Amino acid sequence: MNFKVKDIDISSGGVMVAVINQEDALKLTLHHGDRVGIINGKKHAHAIIDIAENVKTVPLGQVGLFEEVLTFLNVRHGSKVKLVLEEKPMSVHYIKEKLIGKRLNSHKINEIIKDIVAGKLSNIELTYFVAGSFSRKLNSKETVALTKAMINTGEKLKVKSKIIVDKHCTGGVAGNRTTMIVVPIICAAGLKMPKTSSRAITSPAGTADTMEVLANVTLSKTKMEKIVNKLNGCIMWGGAMNLAPADDKIIKVERPLRIDAEGQMLASVLAKKGSVGATHVLIDIPVGIETKIHNKRKAKRLGKRFVTIGKKLGMNIKYMTSNGNEPIGNGIGPALEAKDVLKVLQRSDTRPLDLEKKSVIIAGKMLELSGKCQKGKGELLAQSILDSGKAMSKMKEIIKAQGGKIINASDIKVGKETFDLIAKKSGKVKDINNHVISNVARFAGAPADKKAGLYLYVHEGDMVVKGQKILTIHADSKEKLRFAKKVLSLNKGVRIK
Amino acid sequence: MNFKVKDIDISSGGVMVAVINQEDALKLTLHHGDRVGIINGKKHAHAIIDIAENVKTVPLGQVGLFEEVLTFLNVRHGSKVKLVLEEKPMSVHYIKEKLIGKRLNSHKINEIIKDIVAGKLSNIELTYFVAGSFSRKLNSKETVALTKAMINTGEKLKVKSKIIVDKHCTGGVAGNRTTMIVVPIICAAGLKMPKTSSRAITSPAGTADTMEVLANVTLSKTKMEKIVNKLNGCIMWGGAMNLAPADDKIIKVERPLRIDAEGQMLASVLAKKGSVGATHVLIDIPVGIETKIHNKRKAKRLGKRFVTIGKKLGMNIKYMTSNGNEPIGNGIGPALEAKDVLKVLQRSDTRPLDLEKKSVIIAGKMLELSGKCQKGKGELLAQSILDSGKAMSKMKEIIKAQGGKIINASDIKVGKETFDLIAKKSGKVKDINNHVISNVARFAGAPADKKAGLYLYVHEGDMVVKGQKILTIHADSKEKLRFAKKVLSLNKGVRIK
Repeated sequence: MNFKVKDIDISSGGVMVAVINQEDALKLTLHHGDRVGIINGKKHAHAIIDIAENVKTVPLGQVGLFEEVLTFLNVRHGSKVKLVLEEKPMSVHYIKEKLIGKRLNSHKINEIIKDIVAGKLSNIELTYFVAGSFSRKLNSKETVALTKAMINTGEKLKVKSKIIVDKHCTGGVAGNRTTMIVVPIICAAGLKMPKTSSRAITSPAGTADTMEVLANVTLSKTKMEKIVNKLNGCIMWGGAMNLAPADDKIIKVERPLRIDAEGQMLASVLAKKGSVGATHVLIDIPVGIETKIHNKRKAKRLGKRFVTIGKKLGMNIKYMTSNGNEPIGNGIGPALEAKDVLKVLQRSDTRPLDLEKKSVIIAGKMLELSGKCQKGKGELLAQSILDSGKAMSKMKEIIKAQGGKIINASDIKVGKETFDLIAKKSGKVKDINNHVISNVARFAGAPADKKAGLYLYVHEGDMVVKGQKILTIHADSKEKLRFAKKVLSLNKGVRIK
Repeated sequence: MNFKVKDIDISSGGVMVAVINQEDALKLTLHHGDRVGIINGKKHAHAIIDIAENVKTVPLGQVGLFEEVLTFLNVRHGSKVKLVLEEKPMSVHYIKEKLIGKRLNSHKINEIIKDIVAGKLSNIELTYFVAGSFSRKLNSKETVALTKAMINTGEKLKVKSKIIVDKHCTGGVAGNRTTMIVVPIICAAGLKMPKTSSRAITSPAGTADTMEVLANVTLSKTKMEKIVNKLNGCIMWGGAMNLAPADDKIIKVERPLRIDAEGQMLASVLAKKGSVGATHVLIDIPVGIETKIHNKRKAKRLGKRFVTIGKKLGMNIKYMTSNGNEPIGNGIGPALEAKDVLKVLQRSDTRPLDLEKKSVIIAGKMLELSGKCQKGKGELLAQSILDSGKAMSKMKEIIKAQGGKIINASDIKVGKETFDLIAKKSGKVKDINNHVISNVARFAGAPADKKAGLYLYVHEGDMVVKGQKILTIHADSKEKLRFAKKVLSLNKGVRIK
């Protein structure tokens, strides 16, 4: 069947979609979600049918093509293409099997992930896959297969080294920017650590957002390889590279329901590690009321699953639990957190000691895990690298290699509009709510406004006197400052008793 | 936050969608699938956020609104609206509960269905609901709640009668147009039968498509009520009315994976019956290799579930199993099936006796079920109504009331382009494949071309002699005839041994 191309000027974000008029659909007995081949000469795209009820959207005899299909076929508005009916990919059947509780073997999981990456599955079909993996769970075998499939359908970083170390934090703690201190310590110790980090999704800052205050985090894979081979490490935004691309697509359909399928999460984390070739990985699991993991028992169970699955993927994994009950460091928000990080590396008197402590513990464990020092000696080694200034030198090199200029904490600018929260009574800081603190920073403008956020003067257990500053909000505009103040006034961010 | 409206000229088909630019999304920390309120004066729409990566699609400071939102708010391109952040509806949490295997009470199911009908759930969220109901199954209590919620969120037919009868067939048999014979028999017997039927989805004709050959099937609810109150019955397309609208939306997301969740199916069928106020319902379950139900054991199990759930809904339900191994009647395709129906009603010598027999059995059971006659006397009564011509008179009244003119089988026109399949050897008809026969009729153009389809001269068990006509394909164009012939030549539709 010949059709005239209509450029409908929409991108699906990956899925190959072709739209025909409902009358044409009826004639061809095509339904929403059916498959067609769209052929231009020797190029053959496999697309999913969408149906337009209005001839204004797609007239009879025309096929509306999304950007993905136009690009693939190299056709434009008015071109002629051939449309043929096709079967659904086998992966659709496998997804249905998972939903009714069957176990999927690696071949089937591979097919599903391949089709996700190729844009051959619609969002509804992809959602059914996530639903099945969540409702019926993925066992270790399936999780390993999923991780491998994700790694193999993306690009892989090429770094020449037998040992490549990496870390991951399961999240939920504001200000927790240990990575930016750990990477320079580890690299200064002579180990490779090609770090890719994420941007904030629901928090006021991700490591990528914070590093971006100091340097460029969206470099190419080739550039990243060069930097790592030369300096041992880097701190980049993972999303800028095509590492385990299936993961991003899966996360997109997980968000609407906040699906937290453990198997998917394990695969997601380990696929990113596998894509950079990680051999030794430390997992930090903060335990707290506002983090994902509410008690130590659950943290241990999850940690052990990381270790087991890592082993099957050829990765040496260790996990640790940490206190996730209050924010770490003083700054919350990209610029304020970057300031904290540089203060620790520069050994400033006003550096946040809790952030330093946690970073040294993590770096120490990683040094031990990768065989760089004896068991029990890691923290000492990490601390000495930090104290000697070697970590700071390494960080300077990395910042410069990533096109950055700021290497002094005092050069980092923060929001000019400020508000101080003052203690209304004397007493002990009972608790600091991660969730409220994050929200205040977000309403102040973080992470979009890098300079927005807040600075905490106290931590849990500290004694305060009436009239003392508890925290300062920083914003770029009076309006956002007002928003943030309102959130703070409506919620107990810091409780004093 | 104030935004300028962009009319993006797309309809979602029900869901309320608002699109903003990704930069605005970042500033407002909004993600794909998040909820916003769009306010125009006193009108407040609850919409789901979609994010445009390109400023060409939606520029900064503008909000692209789908038709549904434009209509609801009564705004146009360039209008100013206010955008406020909102929480996700509670139904999203209930859907997640179902996915992890929890049972949903009627309040929760009600909320989900209400939000589906109001367009408050995205297709991804709706898909998670269907996935949960399929993967974790709906028990009887949940199915009853789902059915009630579907009925209560739609319109209900108002017919004055204590007894309202209805029937349903689980499908899969070509040519099975018993409804159009059963309705006039039942109505001539003095019972109310306000029939709403469906159009073909994967078959060459649905009852609505076939009735449409004779009369209008897309009348308003008010008009339908008038006809039923006057003539006892009608045969309409259910899709034209707003009866149990949640069902259509659910079916849309079931199709891509051919999800056949039993609970959903039971609720879907019984909601349609409940919406017309049915009190006595007969369920016909054809058993065969190409139907949904492959053996009697499964048919009985399903039949019993219909009965149980019907009881909880206050419906008196009986079920029967029937032979689903071969097509019923001679004609396949809307016009050819309508011809069969009128032949039976008109007592023509060339009427298909198998179609008559099955219709009389069904009508008989319905007469008994509704107390119109003693047990065991139903078939006799049905046959006498048919023989006396009373059923035909009733059908004439119904056709006229629905604005139709054709009341003679011989006035129905069928496709002029024909091809005869001739027996290549003598022998016994071993089997007739429902699936192949349906496909041939579809490729000939049915159901879109009402005159297309095929006519079967034989049934299973018949003896044929070499050179005898087995079937005739009817099409409106030579091209479609060629398609249908090709399908027939590639598959064994009729096997002779």
